[in-house]
Amino acid sequence: MPVLTAVDVLDVRFPTSLTADGSDAMNKDGDYSAAYVVLHTDDPGLCGYGFTFTIGRGNDLCVAAARQRAQPLIGLDLAEVTGDLGGTYRRLQADTQLRWLGPEKGVVHLALAAVMNAVWDLAARQAGLPLWQFVAETEPAALVDTMDLSYLSDVLTRDDAVAMLEQLRPTRHERLAVLERSGYPCYTTSAGWLGYSDDKLRRLCQEAVDEGYRYLKLKVGANLEDDLRRCALAREVIGPDVHLMVDANQVWEVGTAIRWVQELAQFDLLWIEEPTSPDDVLGHAAIRRAVAPVGVATGEHGMNRVLFKQLLQAEAIDFCQIDSARLGSLNEILPVMLMAAKFGIPVCPHAGGVGLCELVQHLSIIDFLIISGTTEGRVAEYVDHLHEHFVEPCVIKDAAYVLPTGAGYSAEMHPASVARYAYPGGSYWSSAF
Amino acid sequence: MPVLTAVDVLDVRFPTSLTADGSDAMNKDGDYSAAYVVLHTDDPGLCGYGFTFTIGRGNDLCVAAARQRAQPLIGLDLAEVTGDLGGTYRRLQADTQLRWLGPEKGVVHLALAAVMNAVWDLAARQAGLPLWQFVAETEPAALVDTMDLSYLSDVLTRDDAVAMLEQLRPTRHERLAVLERSGYPCYTTSAGWLGYSDDKLRRLCQEAVDEGYRYLKLKVGANLEDDLRRCALAREVIGPDVHLMVDANQVWEVGTAIRWVQELAQFDLLWIEEPTSPDDVLGHAAIRRAVAPVGVATGEHGMNRVLFKQLLQAEAIDFCQIDSARLGSLNEILPVMLMAAKFGIPVCPHAGGVGLCELVQHLSIIDFLIISGTTEGRVAEYVDHLHEHFVEPCVIKDAAYVLPTGAGYSAEMHPASVARYAYPGGSYWSSAF
Repeated sequence: MPVLTAVDVLDVRFPTSLTADGSDAMNKDGDYSAAYVVLHTDDPGLCGYGFTFTIGRGNDLCVAAARQRAQPLIGLDLAEVTGDLGGTYRRLQADTQLRWLGPEKGVVHLALAAVMNAVWDLAARQAGLPLWQFVAETEPAALVDTMDLSYLSDVLTRDDAVAMLEQLRPTRHERLAVLERSGYPCYTTSAGWLGYSDDKLRRLCQEAVDEGYRYLKLKVGANLEDDLRRCALAREVIGPDVHLMVDANQVWEVGTAIRWVQELAQFDLLWIEEPTSPDDVLGHAAIRRAVAPVGVATGEHGMNRVLFKQLLQAEAIDFCQIDSARLGSLNEILPVMLMAAKFGIPVCPHAGGVGLCELVQHLSIIDFLIISGTTEGRVAEYVDHLHEHFVEPCVIKDAAYVLPTGAGYSAEMHPASVARYAYPGGSYWSSAF
Repeated sequence: MPVLTAVDVLDVRFPTSLTADGSDAMNKDGDYSAAYVVLHTDDPGLCGYGFTFTIGRGNDLCVAAARQRAQPLIGLDLAEVTGDLGGTYRRLQADTQLRWLGPEKGVVHLALAAVMNAVWDLAARQAGLPLWQFVAETEPAALVDTMDLSYLSDVLTRDDAVAMLEQLRPTRHERLAVLERSGYPCYTTSAGWLGYSDDKLRRLCQEAVDEGYRYLKLKVGANLEDDLRRCALAREVIGPDVHLMVDANQVWEVGTAIRWVQELAQFDLLWIEEPTSPDDVLGHAAIRRAVAPVGVATGEHGMNRVLFKQLLQAEAIDFCQIDSARLGSLNEILPVMLMAAKFGIPVCPHAGGVGLCELVQHLSIIDFLIISGTTEGRVAEYVDHLHEHFVEPCVIKDAAYVLPTGAGYSAEMHPASVARYAYPGGSYWSSAF
């Protein structure tokens, strides 16, 4: 069995602020970035790749934290690392000195996500399978052993989790056939960044419809008049049958959110995303009661499984937007998807950023194959930028993610991209300074 | 007006794990540490001191984050910094790239606390007043201008805050006379660390009672039989009239917490502290309903004001335990204390660690003078270690904090202590390695 010999963590930043890609009411000038983890083994053909996503400054903090997080794995036989994915997660979580800095939130948790994403990638590569298939083929009891169910027992026990997985297991091949035929449905956010002009918005909306998208999302929240105009314009272009969602990126107070969304509801919105603080479970519940039938969606800043447990318990959300680089990788994401399924709330993962689409496609496929068993009312986010930096970028066909076939979690970046955008020493940044 | 010329941030760690001081069911081997901020001005006699508290590894992350956090202040005239404490906080919070790493939680928020603690210290030193007095003498409207009320308007508006402060203002001198006479009541945790033997526990309980303490707290949660024996022993030593509290440091599931506390309730407990995940508002509410009349206390890991808002809204706590180095300094602590007062929930700050007692004495005094107007049912934590490293350590007399008189927030450490315990280059650590 190979041994994990070294961990490289790289600070990779893309100058997205120059084009207003990714601009929203909260985040006007993000430089999409990754704290990029490479796990090396003594088999030169076998590495694990993972990352967490940030928007620029502070990516160095995540890099430093990921180095500390990964330290206990160096020198271990892979039997102890990828052979015991639950044990590996617990080994890292057992560092109570680092735990104090969260617990299970912020920089140390983002770093845990980066490292565990790389560990899952390594495990799937070792098995020679795409991550989704590696997970879907794991026996239910063994898969539950990988999960962090702590603090969840009032909503999801180990027995619940095993029973849910057992129930869907016999029929997963039927759903796999659907995915092979049609892929997993996605929506696009590429049209609606707040920094885009009306002309650009109109053109991108038309392109999205022409490409077959049935769901489209706009950023809102900076100015009500602008939002009314932009929503009217989008609805005019996409027609009455395409779903329209809006995203306020946390800029409102609870009361403001309610009034603002009630104004926008005339455009037949499927959901309002991140209407207020991502931490405000009870606030989201109040907003949801007030703005129905517009749904409430949140979760991309959902810090950990305990927050999601409460969003579900409080009936605060209509759509559960897990983030693949903020939650503690599959170890924490799988229990959140199980809880959502138990409450009948669809999981519609957050994506975009750097490489989040590459990860998220695996998660939605796993949700469909072994957890919820349905794609009804579900749609994964897709944003069309920065894919060119990935060795196996996600592929979209007819507004759906095409089933990935390469081994691993699709997280590997091109060495040339890493060299160019490494911060601050890469060729792009050293020539920009 | 002086100019803020430079910021030093130092990694200071004390080897407390060697003696099991600070040991509890979650944190068995903490090395109490500070990310210690010194703000320099062009007046050599005027500096600001502040810190956040960690338990060892990862303190370097907080140091690096505090350097980034403080960067925008360098070169500013103090009129813009200490002369506009709300604006300074907002200036630092306006960095949305760093915000992404929380938001408002974890390492970046701990770092904000460290920097803003130093800014408040500097403001009070400039005014030549102890921090508590500097705050208590600020006009209500001006004080509210320093507060971060965002995401709170469904519970506390600006008008509410001003009105509450105005109402107590005319009588604050009566309460000041009480404090000058009797100090602010505290309780001790020094007796009850989990790593202490029964003999040491018994001896320290007796010493606490002899010193006049009417409140005493034990760590619990590792083993029920041990907890039953230790609570019985403590109750036997302190008698029926001294309040006994217990602290589980987040180790339980919601159901476990309920069953365990119901077993311990026979010892007439005032509160159970941190029974489960600090993020689990609804879990704390469920525990509270089940274990009454034992009260529920939490907050030392309360990540930000939005969490406290919900703990109050959900009727999840009987005691609100703000932390002076985890919340974003006075800018965020004052609104939390106002919300607690509005809900009639006593604030009993968390202390101990490194220098938290030094800070907390100011906060409880402020709560009494201008926010809640009472000490009834309130008691601030006191732990007897590491005070020798502070230039103006808190003074305890008859189980009460004596009103501090030096200018500032009592946060300055002895240069010799910093030099000895700087990590990893200080004389202690370089000889230990």
